[in-house]
Amino acid sequence: MATTEKASPRDRLLDAAAELFYRDGVSIGVEALCKSAGVSKRSMYQLFDSKDEVLAASLERRAPGYAARLVPGADDAGTPRERILYIFEQVEKASTEPGFMGCPYLAALVELKDPGHPASVVARASKERMKDAFRVQAELGGAREPDLLARQLMLVFDGANARAGAKLETLDGLTVETVRTLLDAAGVA
Amino acid sequence: MATTEKASPRDRLLDAAAELFYRDGVSIGVEALCKSAGVSKRSMYQLFDSKDEVLAASLERRAPGYAARLVPGADDAGTPRERILYIFEQVEKASTEPGFMGCPYLAALVELKDPGHPASVVARASKERMKDAFRVQAELGGAREPDLLARQLMLVFDGANARAGAKLETLDGLTVETVRTLLDAAGVA
Repeated sequence: MATTEKASPRDRLLDAAAELFYRDGVSIGVEALCKSAGVSKRSMYQLFDSKDEVLAASLERRAPGYAARLVPGADDAGTPRERILYIFEQVEKASTEPGFMGCPYLAALVELKDPGHPASVVARASKERMKDAFRVQAELGGAREPDLLARQLMLVFDGANARAGAKLETLDGLTVETVRTLLDAAGVA
Repeated sequence: MATTEKASPRDRLLDAAAELFYRDGVSIGVEALCKSAGVSKRSMYQLFDSKDEVLAASLERRAPGYAARLVPGADDAGTPRERILYIFEQVEKASTEPGFMGCPYLAALVELKDPGHPASVVARASKERMKDAFRVQAELGGAREPDLLARQLMLVFDGANARAGAKLETLDGLTVETVRTLLDAAGVA
């Protein structure tokens, strides 16, 4: 993420946090974070109570952009089946980009190991919104069990993110084919 | 993992490492590790070059036990379909136990973010062995595309581990039902 000289210390901190936590993990230190943001530790602690709060705010801030990349626009034509498959096509495309490390929200939850951490709360809400979006499309598409289908799609989504992010898998059509099978079985034509 | 007074410093370190890294993450410090193992730092560095080597060795050491929990015994009756489903039944059962945090190998890979880390190498080999085991059963079961089915099963396996480990999901039959659908579509009756 590019930062400009005019960006506020808050924005610079959140941009640096999003980048560093995604690339290096949540255990990155305050020192490295402030250095990368070009912000003094004193300024950081004037803006945020703790590093945990910076992490939570950085995940919160990138949520709309993350969702926008995955979900087709509201005026985009397409059946519910197509809209669901589009999300997996986007994940597969993203997974080939340099620096791809999987879903930032899933990674934060796996790393933090604490459901009560402020960043875990933000991450869990993001994952819940995604599952809800799947369920809406599943219902619109006439799925026999929309809730089951939404949970299955999240399994595939997070499995794909974890495996491709960890360089265990090259997706290459894998999730799209898997999701087609699940949509067929659920009756979403 | 219980340690006895007779366990060697090496075994005590590896037991403590397996427990702490799984529960708290790979960023746990040498200090905490040695304290939990009841081993001096000096002793640790006489046995291992680095904390990274301890982590790698602890993952390596628990691999046979981890596999034994999931895979039915060699003399166990059952069709390939049943053997595959058994693995997911075991994961679902494990996911309800207190302290479950998902697959330790996947978690290590997500946290380390470095495919060249010695523990990542061990973790990746463990995940590859599991995929190979799925492919063998897929072939025995007459899957149309055994490699595709094995990759799909790993998506579900790792998605389920990540989501249940992060308290995003209560599996409760979800993976078994999803895997049945994938087995049906692959022609594994």
